[in-house]
Amino acid sequence: MLKLYYSPGACALASHIALEEAGADYEIQAVNLRAGEQKTPEFLAINPAGSTPALMTDRGPLTQNLVIMGYVAQTYPEANLAPNDDSYAFGRMQAFNGYLASSVHPAMGQLLYAGLEGEARDAALKLTLAKLGVVEDSLLGSPWAMGADYTVADGYLSVFTRWARQAGILDGTRFARLNDHLDRVQVRPAVQRVLAAEGLQAV
Amino acid sequence: MLKLYYSPGACALASHIALEEAGADYEIQAVNLRAGEQKTPEFLAINPAGSTPALMTDRGPLTQNLVIMGYVAQTYPEANLAPNDDSYAFGRMQAFNGYLASSVHPAMGQLLYAGLEGEARDAALKLTLAKLGVVEDSLLGSPWAMGADYTVADGYLSVFTRWARQAGILDGTRFARLNDHLDRVQVRPAVQRVLAAEGLQAV
Repeated sequence: MLKLYYSPGACALASHIALEEAGADYEIQAVNLRAGEQKTPEFLAINPAGSTPALMTDRGPLTQNLVIMGYVAQTYPEANLAPNDDSYAFGRMQAFNGYLASSVHPAMGQLLYAGLEGEARDAALKLTLAKLGVVEDSLLGSPWAMGADYTVADGYLSVFTRWARQAGILDGTRFARLNDHLDRVQVRPAVQRVLAAEGLQAV
Repeated sequence: MLKLYYSPGACALASHIALEEAGADYEIQAVNLRAGEQKTPEFLAINPAGSTPALMTDRGPLTQNLVIMGYVAQTYPEANLAPNDDSYAFGRMQAFNGYLASSVHPAMGQLLYAGLEGEARDAALKLTLAKLGVVEDSLLGSPWAMGADYTVADGYLSVFTRWARQAGILDGTRFARLNDHLDRVQVRPAVQRVLAAEGLQAV
C-alpha cells in the first residue's frame, strides 16, 4: 500500500490531497518536523534530503510534491487529475507546479518560518507578494489553475494560499482570484477529508 | 521549430543540453539577464515569471528546466534520455531534478549571485555544501545520476557542478564523485557542442 510521510499543514498537504482525490488506497505517517524526525536515520533512508513529503510505493520512495502528484495522476488516470495523455499540457501543469515549488514556496518559507525581522522580513514579504502576484495576474486559469478541469495543481496552490490567508497577507482586492480559488478548493469533499485527517480546518 | 530562450552559462544550459542530446531541430535565443531582457513585455508574454529557460513549442511555451527536459525526453523517445515508459523510474529522475531545482539552485544562487558578504555568505556557503553533499553521498548514481543510463538529469547536475568548480568549492576529496561525474558529462560530444554554442568552455 502507498504510504505518505507528511507533516500536518506543511506542503505535503498537496500530495495528500492528490491521493485522496485519486481515490487511492494509502495510509499516512506524520513526521514531526519540529522534533527533527525528518533527520533520523530511518527517515533519511527514505529521503536523503530529509524533507517531506515522501511517498513509499511498492517500488520504493518518491519525493517532491510535483513528482508525487504527477505519479499519482498518472497511476490513477480514471481520476482525471492531470492531462496525462498530452505531453505539452502535462508540461504546462508541471511548470505551474514547478513555479510553486521553486519560487513561491522558498519565498513564503523565508517569510513565515525563518524568524526574520525588520528589513529582512520586509524584503521577504515583498518577494512573496510578487511571486503570488505572478500567479494571480498571469499563471492562474479559471475556474481551476489549468483552466476548465481540476488538476493536482489546484491542491498544491491551495497549500500556499492557505498559508498566505492564515498570515493575513492574501488581500481580498489584490488577490481576488487567488481567494476565490482557495474557497473553491476548500469546499471539495476530498479536501475536507484531508484537512480533517491532518487535524486542520478550512481557513 | 522549437526555440529555446537561454542566458549563456545560466541554468537553461540544462535544457540546451537535453535538446542537443535529443537530436532535436531547434534554435536558440539569448536573453541578456544583466540587461533585464527577461522583464520586457515581449519576454513576459512568453514566461510571466520572467526567468529563463523558456521553450517555445508549436503549442506555446514551456518553462522550468525539469519540465522542458521531461518534455524533450518524452517527445524524442528514440534518444533514450529518460525512462519514459516507467512512471516510477521517471518520477525518481524528476525528483532528482526537483532537488536540484528547489534545493541546490536556490542555495547556489544566493551564494554566487546575491552579493552576500561576511556571515551571510558563510551561511550560504555552508548551505550549498550541505545540499551538494546530499547529492554526492546519497542521490548520485553511477556512472550516471540515475544509474546505468545517461538521462537529462546528468546535464542538469552538470550546470551546478560547473558553477561549483568555477567558484572553487567543488573540493576533489569531499566531492570526488561529483567531480568525476562532471568530467564524464563534459566530454560528451553533444555537451561540447552546446558549450561552444553558448560561448563557454569546459571547466
